[in-house]
Amino acid sequence: MFTVIAERINMTRKRIKKEVWDRNEGFVVEEVKKQEAAGATHIDVNAGGDPSKEVDDMKWLVEVVSGATELPISFDSAKPEALRTGLEICNREGSIINSITAEKDRVDSILPLVVEYNTSVVALTMDDSGMPEDLEGRLKITDDLVKIAADAGVGLGRVHFDHLIRPASTNPGQAVFIIEAIRRTHEKHADAHFAMGLSNISFGIPTRNNLNKAFLAMLVAAGADGAIIDPTEEGMMATLCSARAALGLDEYCMEYLSAHREGKLD
Amino acid sequence: MFTVIAERINMTRKRIKKEVWDRNEGFVVEEVKKQEAAGATHIDVNAGGDPSKEVDDMKWLVEVVSGATELPISFDSAKPEALRTGLEICNREGSIINSITAEKDRVDSILPLVVEYNTSVVALTMDDSGMPEDLEGRLKITDDLVKIAADAGVGLGRVHFDHLIRPASTNPGQAVFIIEAIRRTHEKHADAHFAMGLSNISFGIPTRNNLNKAFLAMLVAAGADGAIIDPTEEGMMATLCSARAALGLDEYCMEYLSAHREGKLD
Repeated sequence: MFTVIAERINMTRKRIKKEVWDRNEGFVVEEVKKQEAAGATHIDVNAGGDPSKEVDDMKWLVEVVSGATELPISFDSAKPEALRTGLEICNREGSIINSITAEKDRVDSILPLVVEYNTSVVALTMDDSGMPEDLEGRLKITDDLVKIAADAGVGLGRVHFDHLIRPASTNPGQAVFIIEAIRRTHEKHADAHFAMGLSNISFGIPTRNNLNKAFLAMLVAAGADGAIIDPTEEGMMATLCSARAALGLDEYCMEYLSAHREGKLD
Repeated sequence: MFTVIAERINMTRKRIKKEVWDRNEGFVVEEVKKQEAAGATHIDVNAGGDPSKEVDDMKWLVEVVSGATELPISFDSAKPEALRTGLEICNREGSIINSITAEKDRVDSILPLVVEYNTSVVALTMDDSGMPEDLEGRLKITDDLVKIAADAGVGLGRVHFDHLIRPASTNPGQAVFIIEAIRRTHEKHADAHFAMGLSNISFGIPTRNNLNKAFLAMLVAAGADGAIIDPTEEGMMATLCSARAALGLDEYCMEYLSAHREGKLD
């Protein structure tokens, strides 16, 4: 089972912001349904269009999204009040808070909600000094986050790491150590999960989808068991399905063969 | 630079065998040209349609292929006489003999040709006991082959390893240790190259192309700098190009951007 956190309902995207502010329920429902049909396991909801409206927008979005699907929601905010508002409306088995970092303020303000609502959480490997540009730095923060979670009584099975990737166009070679960071995290903390936000790899590059897919295959090979993606992107779920089949994570290719019968791989 | 050994001209394929036996020169020239246009760096020639005709067929094929391109040829045979026949006609800078193994007979009969004609060589990690089903077995044969090459005066820069992959459908999980074998070989023998024949991963599976592409991205991430592929297969070269760009092997994505301008990535 791979965790597919579907990223389309994000108000930092201009189109989504407009439709949400217009309170266009049909549009949001359609976004939910097409992501679920494509294979989403979680619907991410980011209401960050305008800080002053975030709580209201989160409330409206979570009401609409939770009415359109039985999937759990990934509540995507750094604002405790927005997270709490969403969780009060819909806290299903599998809910995710997206995200904490190892920054002290972020831990202090958001980790208590993970405990209170018994959710899973996305943990970004950055801290108060920023985002380390080397493997050792990322692994150190990973260990810090493992300890922070343990101290709060949050088991590793509820933590999804995201070793934040920078764009290949501006940071060539960064993917090499990020992949190694996943491999080492997977090796050292076998119970931990992943939720890599992969599309940043292709920022500033044309036909981004090509890079996103190739990078996804690499992440799966390195041990990532989850990602934040757009499952409706062309070939994305076929790549995921193929990567898992190639690696024997989909035993005897049963999931692959069933996706093929449903016409999802052509 | 990635070594793309283009595999289409292979007489174990029914269609190719027929056209070669019909001495259909136009057909073979077309196969060469479309593989070169797609990005081949070497044209593989396998004349193994019928052992009794292999030498004659190799002669005819190499004459036609070498007249149609300036690319070096990968001579694909276990038969020294066929290899010698091909090399006498066309031994360009970059020629490859495909292949040796660590089997004693194969080393004794074929490695001298690598020395005599100063070619590169594909080395398959199997020996007289067969193909080991674990990482340690493959790595031991890799080391054996490194020593065998060195004893013959063949530098590692002329050796392309192929850690033979079995089908995911019948050997689930095998890809995991093959990828690890590439990673370790790359780490331990930094001068060595690779020429992974990847399509076996998808044997017996529908829409094989999906698995081939996902596996190629993983191989590149593990350190493979060459593969035996069909570069005309849909999305194959786009995957290769994207994998290299994502990993920073294509610095600042220059090759990727130029492929995009040529319309090769859509």
